[in-house]
Amino acid sequence: MLICRRISEVRELVRTERGTGKIIGFVPTMGYLHQGHLQLMREAKKDCDMVVISIFVNPAQFGPGEDLERYPRDFERDHALAAEVDVDAIFYPSVEEMYPPGFNTNVDLNSLTGCLCGKSRPGHFRGVATVVTKLFNIVLPDRAYFGQKDAQQVLVIRRMAEDLNMPVEIVTVPTVREEDGLAMSSRNVYLTPEQRRSAAVLFESLKAAEKAVEQGERDAGTILQLVRDMISSVPEAGIDYVELRNISDLNPVEVIDCPVLLALAVRFGQTRLIDNTVLEV
Amino acid sequence: MLICRRISEVRELVRTERGTGKIIGFVPTMGYLHQGHLQLMREAKKDCDMVVISIFVNPAQFGPGEDLERYPRDFERDHALAAEVDVDAIFYPSVEEMYPPGFNTNVDLNSLTGCLCGKSRPGHFRGVATVVTKLFNIVLPDRAYFGQKDAQQVLVIRRMAEDLNMPVEIVTVPTVREEDGLAMSSRNVYLTPEQRRSAAVLFESLKAAEKAVEQGERDAGTILQLVRDMISSVPEAGIDYVELRNISDLNPVEVIDCPVLLALAVRFGQTRLIDNTVLEV
Repeated sequence: MLICRRISEVRELVRTERGTGKIIGFVPTMGYLHQGHLQLMREAKKDCDMVVISIFVNPAQFGPGEDLERYPRDFERDHALAAEVDVDAIFYPSVEEMYPPGFNTNVDLNSLTGCLCGKSRPGHFRGVATVVTKLFNIVLPDRAYFGQKDAQQVLVIRRMAEDLNMPVEIVTVPTVREEDGLAMSSRNVYLTPEQRRSAAVLFESLKAAEKAVEQGERDAGTILQLVRDMISSVPEAGIDYVELRNISDLNPVEVIDCPVLLALAVRFGQTRLIDNTVLEV
Repeated sequence: MLICRRISEVRELVRTERGTGKIIGFVPTMGYLHQGHLQLMREAKKDCDMVVISIFVNPAQFGPGEDLERYPRDFERDHALAAEVDVDAIFYPSVEEMYPPGFNTNVDLNSLTGCLCGKSRPGHFRGVATVVTKLFNIVLPDRAYFGQKDAQQVLVIRRMAEDLNMPVEIVTVPTVREEDGLAMSSRNVYLTPEQRRSAAVLFESLKAAEKAVEQGERDAGTILQLVRDMISSVPEAGIDYVELRNISDLNPVEVIDCPVLLALAVRFGQTRLIDNTVLEV
């Protein structure tokens, strides 16, 4: 497995492989890999002839006061995990390589980004859209893989790729969960043992909402109250948002009469976790 | 010469040609081609194995009250001119093809775009950056050609391409001028015969500034006054801006001690013309 620290290296590597007719798969990550990331890589390996991943903790998608500095990093561990799933190359650039002095350009969306995580984290999706544009232009993948855990991110990237005619297919992979249902996240490492146990309530509340819809409940307010009540019953959990949104434009919904995204962000101490499910009727 | 009205057509065409190892040159235009455009195409033909041009009057780069509706269009004429310089394909999309319903993404720069034409035309360079990003992603050229007449546009596109790691080389081609020095522009067709004669003052004033610098003048204020006085002496000319700016960051300069962009925009009736020169010491 090759490790490329320079843009020119990974670009040249992919160009050579593409020249032999290979299909290139790409998995952008911020590292501290978990089974969710590895599942993206396994899917990419199934579909593609060559799989490149990136490991880059992107400062542009962190706001002031967020966890940029303490975001977990362990390249040796990531390297070993990527080797296990037979990734072909890791693009592992420095911040200076990605944002040299004078950097001045942003990719931004007019909608989809003002609600949910975009409301809690102003500028987050501009940072995501910009770095993903850069990474796509550097790697020029045929397919790029993203996890459904970051549902809004997937919508933003799909919209951006379509609007800007990016020559890449966006593939979404289902959320991978721990045994108790907690969605895999690099941030789970922040949790104290007690917070970790409490955090199972997120998945439980999503399942409860699914069950309510199965049993005929269609009123968004009722479902939201159910989820909020369950989460609020855990003393350590602080709700950032719990919302029901149209799955394509993220507009709020009042009645569940088509597939609806139930998305939530909840703090356990300093740690903000997100999760979601799509409620189908 | 092929005419592609659909994104999928031009993309497939270029993919096939690239597959045979050809170098792809690209000249984006808004049509109503003049010798300036044709010079870009000739340069592209010299450097590249296949030359694609686009003809698209991009609504996103026109502001309210600007000349989007009356911007001159004549595809048959453009087609014939492009054939003369042996262009291989014209990408000639509809507005709906480029901006389908739900379009939602912008590319924008934090600096370079707030002054000169960016100040007179708010949102103009966001529209330019966005459509050029789209066109680059559609055509995937190895080289793209822009005229020095649009000096600020060239800076914006170079910055954007570098910041977003676009895999394309930006080539700048010197301004092509009429016999009396007026820079070629599709908008020159708007001028009345009298305005057309008066418009020669733009080039004359740039030459006068160059001469003053040659003769040792280094004070920006003195040079600007010279240019403004010359233009103001023409009754029909209304100055939008005349400015001296650092050639790399477009910051204002007070003393000419390195290459400096002398840029101007002047109205003749409803018609706004731009021109520029680089003053070298």
